[in-house]
Amino acid sequence: MQVSLSLERSFSHDVAIMVDVLRASTTITIALEKIPYVIPTLEIEEALTMAAKHQAFLAGERSGVTIEGFDAGNSPLEIQKFTGKTLIITTSNGTRILEGIRGRALIGSFVNAQAVAQKAREIANDHIELVMAGVRGRFAIEDFLGAGEIISHLKTNNLNEMALNEMAQSAFLAVQNQELVDHHVKNSLSARNLRKLGFGEDVEFCLQRDISQIVPQFKDGIIKILE
Amino acid sequence: MQVSLSLERSFSHDVAIMVDVLRASTTITIALEKIPYVIPTLEIEEALTMAAKHQAFLAGERSGVTIEGFDAGNSPLEIQKFTGKTLIITTSNGTRILEGIRGRALIGSFVNAQAVAQKAREIANDHIELVMAGVRGRFAIEDFLGAGEIISHLKTNNLNEMALNEMAQSAFLAVQNQELVDHHVKNSLSARNLRKLGFGEDVEFCLQRDISQIVPQFKDGIIKILE
Repeated sequence: MQVSLSLERSFSHDVAIMVDVLRASTTITIALEKIPYVIPTLEIEEALTMAAKHQAFLAGERSGVTIEGFDAGNSPLEIQKFTGKTLIITTSNGTRILEGIRGRALIGSFVNAQAVAQKAREIANDHIELVMAGVRGRFAIEDFLGAGEIISHLKTNNLNEMALNEMAQSAFLAVQNQELVDHHVKNSLSARNLRKLGFGEDVEFCLQRDISQIVPQFKDGIIKILE
Repeated sequence: MQVSLSLERSFSHDVAIMVDVLRASTTITIALEKIPYVIPTLEIEEALTMAAKHQAFLAGERSGVTIEGFDAGNSPLEIQKFTGKTLIITTSNGTRILEGIRGRALIGSFVNAQAVAQKAREIANDHIELVMAGVRGRFAIEDFLGAGEIISHLKTNNLNEMALNEMAQSAFLAVQNQELVDHHVKNSLSARNLRKLGFGEDVEFCLQRDISQIVPQFKDGIIKILE
C-alpha cells in the first residue's frame, strides 16, 4: 500500500483524505454526528440557493468571519448545537479540493484520525493519499501535523505493508511529541487568526484526539457518513 | 529574525543556506578542509574546460555514478583523499540553486549544521532562508531533516528572536528524535540509490553531526570558506 502526502492537489485514483484541521474537516465531522447530509459549496450565492431548496442550515465564513445571515461560522463548537437534515457549508478551499479528488474522498483531522485511518485501510486497494488543504495555496502546519497523526495510525499494525512517500514520512516524524504538536498548532497563523476573531475555543476543540468515530465521505456533491 | 524553509527556489535577499545532504553540501564542506577553492559547474564540458584552465581536480556524477575521466564522484569520502588548490565539482541541481540565491549563499548539512547556523546568525540582518535542494524538483526527506537540524541550532539561544515560517517549524519538529532521523535518511530514495552504486559508506558519513566547523560560501562563481 502506497501512502503519500500532497498539498492541495490530489493525485490518487484510489482513496484520498482531505485534511483541513482548522476548521473544515473538524466541523464537517462534528456536524455529521447530528446532521446526516452536509453539502459543501464554493460560493455564498450557491449556498443561499441550496439552503432555500433543502430547508437547510447555513454555515460559512470568509477569512474566519461568519457570513452575515448564515446560521453559523465553520465552527465545530457552534455546529454542535444544530440538529436537522441538511447543512450547507461554504468552504471555498475545501470544496475545491474535494471536487478535485478522482477516487474516493474522505475527510480527516485530529478528532477522527484513528477512525479515518482505519476506514481508509479497509477500502483502499493500493494507494492512500493525504491532501493538505493549506491556506490559499500555502503550506499550513496544522494540516501537515493532522496528516502526520492520521499517517501514524496508518502505520500501526501494518508497518511493513505501508510504503510512505518522503513527505508522508516527514509528517510522521513531526508528530512524535504531542506537546510540541499542540504548541505549534496553537501558535499557527490560522489559530492566531481564529483567536483574534474570538474562535480560540475552536482551536482547542480541533486539537482533541479521536473524539469521533465518524468518517465523512464526499460523493456526488454530498458529504455523508461512510459506514 | 525571519527563518524560512523552501524547496529549490530561493526568496531571501539576505542569507540563504543551500541544503543538499546527499551529497553536494557535505562533499563541498569536506573538500574545503584541504582545498581552498571549489568551483561548481552545471555541465560536464564546462567542468573539463575549467579543470584544464585551473589545473584542478574534477569531481562529478550523474545519478550518483562518477563521470568517466573525473578524479572522483561527489563523494565526501573520496574527496577527503585530495589536497590541492582547486576542485571543480559538477552538480547540476546544486549549482542552479546557488546561482539562484540573490543574497549571501552559504552551504549546510548535518556535518556543519551547528557552524553554519552560528555563522548565519552572525551575518544575517533579518532573514535566514534554508533552501532544500531536493531531487529533480522533488521533495527529499534528507534535505528536510538536514534543514531541520540547522534550524534547531538557529533556535538555540535566540528562541524569542527567531520567527520560523510554518515549513521551518515542521522541519524542526521532525528532527526531535535522532534515531528516527537516521533511520529515515538511511532509507531515503537517495540513500538507497547511493548504496546500490556502492556509496553506502557515504550515507553514514553524511549523517555525522558537526564534524566540521567549515562554513562554505558561494560568491562570484567560487565556493570558499567564510571566515
